[in-house]
Amino acid sequence: MENILILGSTGSIGQNAIEIIKKGSKYNIIGIAFNKNISKAIEQIKLLKPKYVYVAKADYIEQLKQLFPTIKYFTQDALVDLIAKSDVDFVINAFVGSAGILPSYYAIYYKKKFALANKESLVVAGKILTDLAKKNNIEIIPIDSEHSAIYQCLDGKRQYLNKIILTASGGPFRQTDKEQFANITKEMALHHPKWNMGAKITIDSATMMNKGFEVIEAGWLFDLESHQIEVVVHKECVMHSAVEFIDGSIIAQMALPDMKLPIAYALYKPHRIEFKNKLSFVDIGSLTFEKPDLEKFELLALAQEAFRKKDKNLGLLLNAADEVCVEHFLENKIKFTDIPKIIKQIIVDFEDNLSNNIFELQAQTQMIKTQTIKLIEKTRGF
Amino acid sequence: MENILILGSTGSIGQNAIEIIKKGSKYNIIGIAFNKNISKAIEQIKLLKPKYVYVAKADYIEQLKQLFPTIKYFTQDALVDLIAKSDVDFVINAFVGSAGILPSYYAIYYKKKFALANKESLVVAGKILTDLAKKNNIEIIPIDSEHSAIYQCLDGKRQYLNKIILTASGGPFRQTDKEQFANITKEMALHHPKWNMGAKITIDSATMMNKGFEVIEAGWLFDLESHQIEVVVHKECVMHSAVEFIDGSIIAQMALPDMKLPIAYALYKPHRIEFKNKLSFVDIGSLTFEKPDLEKFELLALAQEAFRKKDKNLGLLLNAADEVCVEHFLENKIKFTDIPKIIKQIIVDFEDNLSNNIFELQAQTQMIKTQTIKLIEKTRGF
Repeated sequence: MENILILGSTGSIGQNAIEIIKKGSKYNIIGIAFNKNISKAIEQIKLLKPKYVYVAKADYIEQLKQLFPTIKYFTQDALVDLIAKSDVDFVINAFVGSAGILPSYYAIYYKKKFALANKESLVVAGKILTDLAKKNNIEIIPIDSEHSAIYQCLDGKRQYLNKIILTASGGPFRQTDKEQFANITKEMALHHPKWNMGAKITIDSATMMNKGFEVIEAGWLFDLESHQIEVVVHKECVMHSAVEFIDGSIIAQMALPDMKLPIAYALYKPHRIEFKNKLSFVDIGSLTFEKPDLEKFELLALAQEAFRKKDKNLGLLLNAADEVCVEHFLENKIKFTDIPKIIKQIIVDFEDNLSNNIFELQAQTQMIKTQTIKLIEKTRGF
Repeated sequence: MENILILGSTGSIGQNAIEIIKKGSKYNIIGIAFNKNISKAIEQIKLLKPKYVYVAKADYIEQLKQLFPTIKYFTQDALVDLIAKSDVDFVINAFVGSAGILPSYYAIYYKKKFALANKESLVVAGKILTDLAKKNNIEIIPIDSEHSAIYQCLDGKRQYLNKIILTASGGPFRQTDKEQFANITKEMALHHPKWNMGAKITIDSATMMNKGFEVIEAGWLFDLESHQIEVVVHKECVMHSAVEFIDGSIIAQMALPDMKLPIAYALYKPHRIEFKNKLSFVDIGSLTFEKPDLEKFELLALAQEAFRKKDKNLGLLLNAADEVCVEHFLENKIKFTDIPKIIKQIIVDFEDNLSNNIFELQAQTQMIKTQTIKLIEKTRGF
C-alpha cells in the first residue's frame, strides 16, 4: 500500500479521489488537508482515520483535537513538514487557487509521487516546477480532464508528438456577437452549457481565460512550444483533447464528462478502473470542431501570447489580474468586457517586473492583485 | 538490420511498404513475392537486389533467371521453404485473396515477425492462426487501417478493453432506400465515396461485406466476443476506429486516409515516421456517427452472426461465396440484391460441413465456390 496525502480533501476533486481510493486497496490515505469545510473534514476524518491532518485555519485545530486527539495536526507554516514526511508516498494537490503553488513545489522537491489538480501551480510557476520535476525525475500526473486526455493519448510517446489539440467547449458565448459582449451579465456568464463548476472557473470558461490557463499548463506539462498547442472549440465536450504524432496520426481521448475518470487514471495508471457511464457515438451523432474566435475571446489570445513569451512568466500576471477582475465582475463592479481590458493593461504595466523565484511568487501575486484593484478603481473613477 | 520478405510486393501495400522501407535503415528487403505484374517485379528486383524471389507463375522464372541469374527463385510449392529460411526475420503478407492464408500460417509457424495485410487469413482461418500465434508467442501486426487504428489505441492495454468501435464509411448506398437496392448497377457500386480501391473490395464496401469481414478479423485479432465489436457508420472516414476501455475512456485514432500510416506503424512501432499530410479538425468541421442499417446491409449482419458462431468458421463460407457472387455481379450475371441472398443460402446449406484444418481450407474454399456457382446457375435457370 502507498500512503497518500490529499490536499484539498473536502473539495469535489478531493471527495471523488477519496471515493475512488476507498474502493481499492492500493492506497492508504495517510493525511488530508482542507481549508474551510470543517463539517466535511470531520466526516472524512471519521471515515479515513488519517494519521495527519492539515488545517488552513488554526482556529479549527482545538475543535479537532478534542474530537480526534491522536491525530498529528499541521497548520499553515508546517505544510512543508507534512509533505516532507517520509511516510507520505504520494501527494494529490487539489488545493484551489494560488495556495496550491508551494505545495506542488514541496511535493516535487521531496520527490513524492505527484498528481496535480491545482491550476495555478503550472500557470504561475510552470517553469520552476517543471524544471525541478525534470531535475528530481518526478512525473507531474495531470488530473484536469484536458491534460489527462493528452497524457492518456501520449502514453510515454512524447518523442513522436507533433502537437496537441486542446478542446474547448467555447463556453456560453460561443455564438454571441462580440457587439453584445458588453451586455453580458453575471447571471448569463454563470450559466455554463456543459460543466457544473465553481463561480470563478465558470466565468473563466465564459471568457475562455480558463482555456488560456490550460494552454499555459499544457505547454509546461508537456514541454511544448506555443505553435504546438492548437485550441479547437468542440461544443459537445466529449473529446477531452487529442495529440497529433509526427506521422499524422491523431489519438484522441473521449468520454462523458466525469472527473472520476482522470482522477482514477492519475491514481491507477496504466490500470483502468471500471465505471458504468459510457459514451455512445451513435447517441451523440456528431462531434463538431471550429476555430476559436480570438477577437471575441481576447483572453485566450492573451494567454497564447503569454506562453509564447514563456520566459517572462506572464502566467502570474494573468492569474492574479484575472482573479481580481472575476471577483469584481461577480460583484457587478466591472463589465464583462472590462475583464480583458484590465488584464491587458496589467500585462503592459508589469510585464518586465517579474522574478522567477518560487518564494516570491505569492508576494508578487499579492502585489499584482493590489495593482489590479487600484487600476479598476482608477478606471471606475473612485 | 532485419531481413524482410514482402509477399505481394507489386500490389499497392507492397509498393508502399518498399517505399517506406527504402527511406530507413532498419530493414533489408531479402525477398519479394509477386503474382502477375512481371514488369513491376523486374523494376523492384533492379532496385532492391533481393536474395530471394517468389514467382506464382512458373513461366516467369526463366525470363527472370536470364535477367538476374544470381537470385534464388521459389515457385508455388516452395513458398513454405522461402518463409522458413533462417535469414528471413520479418514477413509482410500483402497477398490478395485466399492465396494469402497458408503464407500467414507458415510465417507464424516458423515464428517470424509478422505483419498482415491479407484479409482472407483471419476471415477464413482466424481461429487456427490466432491459436498458433498464441502458442508460438507471435504477434500478428495488422496493416489494415481499421485494425491498425485499434492496435494503436490498445497499445498493449488489451486487459482494460471493454469493446472496439469499428468505423465504416457506409459505402455509396448509405442513404439509398432498400427498395432501390435491386436497381443498383455495377457502375453505381464501383463508385466509392472515400477510398480508391480494387473492384472486389469496392463492391464489398458497397454491400458492407467488407466491414463484416473486418468484424471477423478484429474479433480474432483482438480476441473479442461478438458483443465487444460495435460497428459505427462514420462517413467522413477520418476516425479509423476506436477502443473503449472499462473506465469509459474511448481512445480513437484519426488521420487522413493514407495506407502509408498503418504500414509504417506496422514496420516501425512504437516509433513513428514523419509524414507531411495532416488532418485538421477545424477543416473537417464535424465527424458524424450513425448506426449501420442491418436490414439494408444484410451481409454485415450475416458476418456479425457468423462471428457469434465463431467455432463454426463461417468466415470461410462468407469469403468463398462472396468472391463468386461479386465476380458474377461484376459480369452483370446477378443483381446486387442477389449477393446476400445467395450467400445466405450457402451458409444454410454448408454451415455444419466445415473442418478446421489449415491444409483443407483451400479445398473447402474451392468446393464452396463451385457450389456457389451451381447455386447461381440454378437460380438463374441455366
